[in-house]
Amino acid sequence: MKITVVKVGGGIVEDEKSLSALLDKFARIEGLKVLVHGGGRSATKVAEQLGIQQTMIGGRRITDAETLKVVTMVYAGLVNKNIVAQLQARDVNALGLTGADMNVIVSHRRPIKQVKMEDGTVQPVDYGFVGDVDKVNADLLADLIAKGVVPVVSPIGHDGKGNLLNTNADTIASQVAIALAQHFEVTLMFCFEKRGVLRDPEDDNSVIPQITASDFPRLVDEGIVSGGMLPKLENSFAAISAGVKEVVITQADQIDQKGEGTHLC
Amino acid sequence: MKITVVKVGGGIVEDEKSLSALLDKFARIEGLKVLVHGGGRSATKVAEQLGIQQTMIGGRRITDAETLKVVTMVYAGLVNKNIVAQLQARDVNALGLTGADMNVIVSHRRPIKQVKMEDGTVQPVDYGFVGDVDKVNADLLADLIAKGVVPVVSPIGHDGKGNLLNTNADTIASQVAIALAQHFEVTLMFCFEKRGVLRDPEDDNSVIPQITASDFPRLVDEGIVSGGMLPKLENSFAAISAGVKEVVITQADQIDQKGEGTHLC
Repeated sequence: MKITVVKVGGGIVEDEKSLSALLDKFARIEGLKVLVHGGGRSATKVAEQLGIQQTMIGGRRITDAETLKVVTMVYAGLVNKNIVAQLQARDVNALGLTGADMNVIVSHRRPIKQVKMEDGTVQPVDYGFVGDVDKVNADLLADLIAKGVVPVVSPIGHDGKGNLLNTNADTIASQVAIALAQHFEVTLMFCFEKRGVLRDPEDDNSVIPQITASDFPRLVDEGIVSGGMLPKLENSFAAISAGVKEVVITQADQIDQKGEGTHLC
Repeated sequence: MKITVVKVGGGIVEDEKSLSALLDKFARIEGLKVLVHGGGRSATKVAEQLGIQQTMIGGRRITDAETLKVVTMVYAGLVNKNIVAQLQARDVNALGLTGADMNVIVSHRRPIKQVKMEDGTVQPVDYGFVGDVDKVNADLLADLIAKGVVPVVSPIGHDGKGNLLNTNADTIASQVAIALAQHFEVTLMFCFEKRGVLRDPEDDNSVIPQITASDFPRLVDEGIVSGGMLPKLENSFAAISAGVKEVVITQADQIDQKGEGTHLC
């Protein structure tokens, strides 16, 4: 059976209108499906309101104990449960999850890492309660999915020792997709601001319809794939190597249109 | 198969030490089980920190749109997922749920009610986004439970139209217990500050070990059951009439000791 795993970032799910439009389209995706979401902007907002200072290094949130509470409240509570309730209103039998629920995503706390800072120096960084994924236990999940349940996964993992861990949503989407590939034919769909990978970043109509693993190094050499797109595509090809049938990089408003976006395979 | 549904109030789950002790005991309950929790004190604290004024009428929280966000964050996020992670650390395969997840608890928004106020006047009260339970869909839940999953239910329902609803945790526990009685032999356990229903409220050793439906009116007449205990016992006997095998009113630190507390049947 086919399944579509859709990853959507915080920007879309945190705005009432764009969320509603997204869920209309998500509800229209045929067959089995999973939604993985972010929620960073709301977390930053709530942290500000609570007077908890936020530090970002290389786009990653340093997650101290107080910030962990905030992301748990916002990702697993506010954002996740609103999505679930609104999917139920669209007759999608959603089930909101963190990695701790049914032990779906087991992680370990990221060790202190040497990181190149903006000023060029290399410094040790303790990301705090941030998780790197060890394992996705998808058997119970696959049972539920086969019964029509649609998991909605928030970017919170756990270490099996009682600690929740803030985890990158792209990584969760990839790892869940890989684990589900044991049970289903998986399409992993990353929602992006642009309509796909663009040959010319200035031209929204220059979407590259397909990139194969053998095309990829050439596109990197030519500078067509660079910046933030580079790790996204590396992760995507890693997921394909690990059993995912296809990765699609597309815009949130075309997730229900099969031919759109850039298809990696 | 036997199952124990434990309802525990906010006071216990919000304090790190008492939560840890509770979960140790909950983990030791033999056989199938469900945990239903509150979280009101944390919600009040977070609302205060966010500058959202809280109004309580007759012990019930008036839930405006901003307060609904707070209780969703606190009950379904912070409190629920911490319990889930800590149960996983005790090898209990917990799954945190609201009523929206898998459409488990369908509610409707409470209509405006005429309520007797503290000053004796009767006034119309709009509780806001507060739910009264219509239906518990326990089939998928019962499947999961039979596979070893332990649901951890937060007091948030939904109306099926996209709205989450703040819902009384005692009511959720009773309704879940009643719905599970179609699948299992259910013991519903309410954690209480005292060791059970006391014959003499001043004497903690005067626990009444058993109350039957036929004893109940006499105990009310004698004034032994009064105040907040009265609706609790009325709800308990209603649950028994609806198929629950037994209701136990006990203290959180004796939930793993079968003979303790007051047994209603």
